[in-house]
Amino acid sequence: LSFEVRHSDLAARIGKIETMHGAFETPVFIPVIHPVKQIVDTKFLEKLGFKIVITNAYTTLKYYGTEACERGIHDIINYNGVVMTDSGGYQVLRYGSVEVNPQTMAAFQKDISSDIAVPLDKPTGYGLSYELAKEYVQQTLNNARETLDTINEAREEKIESQVDDNCVDTIAATKRAIPTKPIHLFGAGHPLTIPLIVALGCDMFDSASYVLYAKEDRYLHANGTSKLQDLSYFPCQCPTCLSYTVKELLDLDKEKRTAEVANHNLYMLQAEVSIVKQTIVDGRLWEYVMQKAHAHPKVMEALELLKNFEFLEYGTPLFKGKALFMFDPLDQYRPEAKRFRRMVSNFRSPKYKRKRLVLYPELDIHPFYSSTTLVNLTKKFPDAQICTYSPFLGIIPVEISDIFPAAHNLIPRKTLTNSQAKDYPTFIESLNRFLIENGFEEVMIVEDHFILEVIEKISTQKPNLKVLRLQE
Amino acid sequence: LSFEVRHSDLAARIGKIETMHGAFETPVFIPVIHPVKQIVDTKFLEKLGFKIVITNAYTTLKYYGTEACERGIHDIINYNGVVMTDSGGYQVLRYGSVEVNPQTMAAFQKDISSDIAVPLDKPTGYGLSYELAKEYVQQTLNNARETLDTINEAREEKIESQVDDNCVDTIAATKRAIPTKPIHLFGAGHPLTIPLIVALGCDMFDSASYVLYAKEDRYLHANGTSKLQDLSYFPCQCPTCLSYTVKELLDLDKEKRTAEVANHNLYMLQAEVSIVKQTIVDGRLWEYVMQKAHAHPKVMEALELLKNFEFLEYGTPLFKGKALFMFDPLDQYRPEAKRFRRMVSNFRSPKYKRKRLVLYPELDIHPFYSSTTLVNLTKKFPDAQICTYSPFLGIIPVEISDIFPAAHNLIPRKTLTNSQAKDYPTFIESLNRFLIENGFEEVMIVEDHFILEVIEKISTQKPNLKVLRLQE
Repeated sequence: LSFEVRHSDLAARIGKIETMHGAFETPVFIPVIHPVKQIVDTKFLEKLGFKIVITNAYTTLKYYGTEACERGIHDIINYNGVVMTDSGGYQVLRYGSVEVNPQTMAAFQKDISSDIAVPLDKPTGYGLSYELAKEYVQQTLNNARETLDTINEAREEKIESQVDDNCVDTIAATKRAIPTKPIHLFGAGHPLTIPLIVALGCDMFDSASYVLYAKEDRYLHANGTSKLQDLSYFPCQCPTCLSYTVKELLDLDKEKRTAEVANHNLYMLQAEVSIVKQTIVDGRLWEYVMQKAHAHPKVMEALELLKNFEFLEYGTPLFKGKALFMFDPLDQYRPEAKRFRRMVSNFRSPKYKRKRLVLYPELDIHPFYSSTTLVNLTKKFPDAQICTYSPFLGIIPVEISDIFPAAHNLIPRKTLTNSQAKDYPTFIESLNRFLIENGFEEVMIVEDHFILEVIEKISTQKPNLKVLRLQE
Repeated sequence: LSFEVRHSDLAARIGKIETMHGAFETPVFIPVIHPVKQIVDTKFLEKLGFKIVITNAYTTLKYYGTEACERGIHDIINYNGVVMTDSGGYQVLRYGSVEVNPQTMAAFQKDISSDIAVPLDKPTGYGLSYELAKEYVQQTLNNARETLDTINEAREEKIESQVDDNCVDTIAATKRAIPTKPIHLFGAGHPLTIPLIVALGCDMFDSASYVLYAKEDRYLHANGTSKLQDLSYFPCQCPTCLSYTVKELLDLDKEKRTAEVANHNLYMLQAEVSIVKQTIVDGRLWEYVMQKAHAHPKVMEALELLKNFEFLEYGTPLFKGKALFMFDPLDQYRPEAKRFRRMVSNFRSPKYKRKRLVLYPELDIHPFYSSTTLVNLTKKFPDAQICTYSPFLGIIPVEISDIFPAAHNLIPRKTLTNSQAKDYPTFIESLNRFLIENGFEEVMIVEDHFILEVIEKISTQKPNLKVLRLQE
């Protein structure tokens, strides 16, 4: 089971996983297939380009028994691609326990030729006491070990959680433990959260949402779901939506309608994953996650988690072909900005420039060193360290003002004009450090509202700093 | 030529226009058809659901001459739906003048059975002196009058502009002049700007972008265009994208590839218009425009224009079925918020409550009057006017705290926590007015950061106002 990474951005990876039944690319949405009463034809899934599906080994065992071992899971669900099998952990969560033991489930998954097997876990669910949760996790680990002994190959890490603080902590812990392995998030199939979970480093995620929603006449779209009867227009050009009007679809009998809505939902999820993948290739996943978050305040709240998620930086390319777009204070925490501030914190001004620091607001001319403003400033202050600055990136010494992304970012004018010091703690810290490390005695500023606020905050900590106003 | 409006939100309208060759719905994207060398088959456009196209009467006249009058424009372009004809104004802009006069063009458009004719205009272009621009506009008006005399029916207003201050002023002027007529914006066919121009009240817009982009191998997607060779994945599930891989499409010969990319671009534009229409029905056009603006800082800058655009309110329903989502200070200018503040400005506290105003921060419980907090506050301050408040909506007197949208909005926690008085001038004005109109002598506040800043600003104007701190 090899995992080869081709592109990355934030903690997202475009990778390729090879199995006995062919290869598939990640990030991947894996539709859940019911081994007995599947509504959407698995052949249709193949046609749609789904190269991997997941089905439930426990249900298969209960329904087919040993017949399943003779036929194999691929024959049972009539699908020739990669088949991942879940183990019954969800049933444990729902019914308390199942009547099989981990070894049996492991052996069974091997016997039915599962391409990716999952150990029978004991899910903690939510709100369990620490002691009990610990006991459950220990049991899952034991099960996993036994499963590995049985099928003799490490395969997947199992995470169960919503996208909240706990989820991010869990993903972070998992990534720390197995940085080079693909990570699977169970039960995630909502177009609103897909960009975020991929950005956090989930390579695979499965869901039956496409059909569960369809059963309730819920139609997936880029920003969530709508009841079919609330639609006047299909906001989609997939083959299913092109072949019906909303009214025609509503007039179908329940079974046919469910299947057709499920088909659309699959097209939609596939489109969302393709968008995310192209966004990774383009190096614009941060922008896309931010834009997507404007679909719902709850998703926006979840983005706070990105601030300190250590893994975002590892996958983000050092240089990008396009300018970064920055709109919101949260953007100061994007990996490219963090990296730039770190670079500046290691920058040392030449000794003869260490008396005076000149801070000049960013111009539209990039890089700053190519501007005539700089020529004039240098003439006027030949022994000063000249810097420009951006609320998002911090201090930009003119000497490195061409380094990505100092000269490669675009910010709405209003955002620049209205920036307030208190929203940019990274800026204050970055300037503070720059002053200390280089031992400046004077700072010369142009009176813009943002830098005045910053200097005010800094002056309370550095009463000796002499602040001069630069006359234009 | 009837225009019947069925839904509206902001200044956007879903309407139906009846013509000699059938009806079409607005807002509508109208593909430009070349009367001589059209690349995408017009029958394909019919299949895609385009019920109206636009072609150039001037080019038709030059190429076909009187043959066009015998055959009619529908036969010439092989299309049975509604055909709008442009008049040559674009050619005037490009080449300085055309060799036909307005009457000839008007008669010709009538003779070829154009469903929607456009008078030969004298476009001002951009950067013309006021005097010259005035002269051109006068000439266009004369032409329009002559055209009307010739074809004897008022049909369209012509606007030519980009989406900037000028464009919005022009749209506003046009809407003021003809509020009940459909408005056509010439030359607008970019998925990034469609939601904004529709929100501003453009009912129809045409473009040849789908094929012009295709000729340069530019592929349209929700946030703009990409060069085909930069794509690794199609972020789309339209029939064209489903039938090729990127590589296969790149390997086609130029002519076939151009046609296929143009087909995709048309699917894409059609999808964007469908999304916008469903968004109008859902009453979420403001949210969608805001989200879309996060695709590019330049679009975000253009949104400043929405602040004072008077027509947004007329089309916005008084009540909406879903909670408003608010993220950004710009949201204080949405029509629902303006309306609510206006309602509050007409609210008068009962006389016995006019000594003291209690301002209590918004709770998660909506409406505020159903909270136990209110019960306790009322017990404690039986003779006070109790209000809650939101940076976006202003003061919310408990008596009307269930009125839309006071109890029907969702704001990310971070946005509420970090709101700063200076970003919400409408709030300061609304509180100021509330204090004056009701003659409060005391205001009692809970010390949250936002209201402290507000009160500080107000106190400088009202030194007599007694500010008390409410102990929790």
